[in-house]
Amino acid sequence: LSHLSPSSRPPTLQWIGSIDGHLQILDQRKLPTITELVTIQNTEELWNAIKTLAVRGAPAIGVAAAYGMVLAARTVPPSSQSNILIDVLETTADYLKSARPTAVNLAWAVDRMLSVAIAQRAVGVRQLQQRLLQEAQSIQAQDTAMCLAIGRHGAPFIKPNARILTHCNAGALATSDHGTALATLYEAQRQGIPFQVYADETRPLLQGARLTAWELAASNIDVTLICDNMAGMVMREKQISLVIVGADRIAANGDTANKIGTYSVALLARAHNIPFLVAAPTSTFDLTLKDGSQIPIEERPGSEITNSPGPSNECLAPPGIKTYNPAFDITPASLITAIVTDQGVISPVTEPAIRALIHPPAKQNP
Amino acid sequence: LSHLSPSSRPPTLQWIGSIDGHLQILDQRKLPTITELVTIQNTEELWNAIKTLAVRGAPAIGVAAAYGMVLAARTVPPSSQSNILIDVLETTADYLKSARPTAVNLAWAVDRMLSVAIAQRAVGVRQLQQRLLQEAQSIQAQDTAMCLAIGRHGAPFIKPNARILTHCNAGALATSDHGTALATLYEAQRQGIPFQVYADETRPLLQGARLTAWELAASNIDVTLICDNMAGMVMREKQISLVIVGADRIAANGDTANKIGTYSVALLARAHNIPFLVAAPTSTFDLTLKDGSQIPIEERPGSEITNSPGPSNECLAPPGIKTYNPAFDITPASLITAIVTDQGVISPVTEPAIRALIHPPAKQNP
Repeated sequence: LSHLSPSSRPPTLQWIGSIDGHLQILDQRKLPTITELVTIQNTEELWNAIKTLAVRGAPAIGVAAAYGMVLAARTVPPSSQSNILIDVLETTADYLKSARPTAVNLAWAVDRMLSVAIAQRAVGVRQLQQRLLQEAQSIQAQDTAMCLAIGRHGAPFIKPNARILTHCNAGALATSDHGTALATLYEAQRQGIPFQVYADETRPLLQGARLTAWELAASNIDVTLICDNMAGMVMREKQISLVIVGADRIAANGDTANKIGTYSVALLARAHNIPFLVAAPTSTFDLTLKDGSQIPIEERPGSEITNSPGPSNECLAPPGIKTYNPAFDITPASLITAIVTDQGVISPVTEPAIRALIHPPAKQNP
Repeated sequence: LSHLSPSSRPPTLQWIGSIDGHLQILDQRKLPTITELVTIQNTEELWNAIKTLAVRGAPAIGVAAAYGMVLAARTVPPSSQSNILIDVLETTADYLKSARPTAVNLAWAVDRMLSVAIAQRAVGVRQLQQRLLQEAQSIQAQDTAMCLAIGRHGAPFIKPNARILTHCNAGALATSDHGTALATLYEAQRQGIPFQVYADETRPLLQGARLTAWELAASNIDVTLICDNMAGMVMREKQISLVIVGADRIAANGDTANKIGTYSVALLARAHNIPFLVAAPTSTFDLTLKDGSQIPIEERPGSEITNSPGPSNECLAPPGIKTYNPAFDITPASLITAIVTDQGVISPVTEPAIRALIHPPAKQNP
């Protein structure tokens, strides 16, 4: 446990040391006011960290769960039979999945770890423990490589002195590092391109204020926090030159589901002739969906709107008031200038262009 | 002091009884969670109520201040010379103005009360006290008449089963009753026209959540609270048929300054082909301003964005983060379908149409 200055952003999660080491995670429950690293020594601690959102974001959860399988494996004495280890891993896989039952990446990662153990059981427990650590590190490396590839493909859109607006958090905090949409900013920064960012606070849960503004400032990127309803005025007054957002799901025609408010931002960008980029891994595409109308939209409790998202949870609206709280909206492909992926850039956004880029899913972190 | 059920909305402010009575105000500091009426018996209590925003909104402050002059006048013994009363009123005028030094309506109202007293000083103290109460009630009646006239002119835009979106609070709570933009809704309700309202919460200070949602619900109007960034999605998904907002200042060409976020809502309305109405008293026009670029935009402290607007004031963003917090934005006349005033409707919104309707300002509450 250590306290860090906001100008040094620690990695979202990281294995420290050898097989006898530990998983270190940045505690996202305490952001943005406290930057604290937590040491995870066993699967119970990891289950709690995932359950209570100390670590969140689909790719980051997958990587964390893979390390959780390592933590379980190393509890088995080296003198044991491999069967014992497999049994422990099977139990752990179910246990970790129960922390976030709908998290596809979590299930994918623990199943991949389990199948590696089963396939290589002949090498014995001590060797298997080492191989599982390598496999978890390989899952993390693939995630990092995916982020960096998005960054490389997206960075050319960021011209010197660009003024970029972003919404929600598609950043390093949601992945093992670098992020998806924000990877383009980190890559542009690495290339020495000067730019400024305006971050929508992203009501109701304020991911823009709590996560995006935090991670960009902690990475020494010039970021200004605004309320969502200022986006139109800021586009005009501050001459925003580019909008970049992430995606939760993309249909075959390019219609994109992302955090609520993205559709409004896309319309405002169009009204000001500002390019609107979506940046996301190819695993975000669901080519079985014809268009955005087939993407289900989660409605969440109205208390997210009526009560403070901070620790006080204080009520800020009339008790019992009717609310409507969709978690996502659909931005039609026609409003998207380009989709930046780890495999390349899709522009203009058309179904043939998408199908040409997205190959049948390989065995990768979804 | 009394507690009321949310289905009975008390007037924003009201003089109770004769000259020996008191001013009763709805305590807006406690809304939306507590509905409480406060009794104001003297000018100190009124100064505090204005200073601490127990009563707010330009027209309401003007009316309250007029009653404040009555509270001061009645402290003078009936046997005194009129000069004593005038002296007390002059001191009180300066005192009340100091509660909100930039509130034009406040200064206008106390000066009007003072000039009535000076002009009629010959009638003696007892009579003057009565006439001042009548003058304050007349100022309130004019304000109410102005609101009702806006309502009458605006109601025809509300068709049966309309789905209306509004932003911020241009409601009964900002006036002595009925409001400006929201007066159109109260008039449509009175006429028995069925409609639904979606209220933007209006970050950073949440006037939509705290005031608009409260007063519409308390008036038995079907209102749904949403976050500002949901406006675009709600326009499409819920088939919004009309947007109505208020105005803080309108230039000669119709460009309108209103609460931050109004410009974004106007652009989103245009993208969905939804009529966008501004409703405001004619006193809101400033014909000395050629267009919106001449309207100064107040920037407010970033703490309004970074900290909760509730009693906790808890920090919800990274400490020290850079912010941009304009309080207003400018909606160009080209995005406004019509401006509804107490004198009639301006549509299409052009400078000749505005000048034809707005006569040189008469002696009215500005």
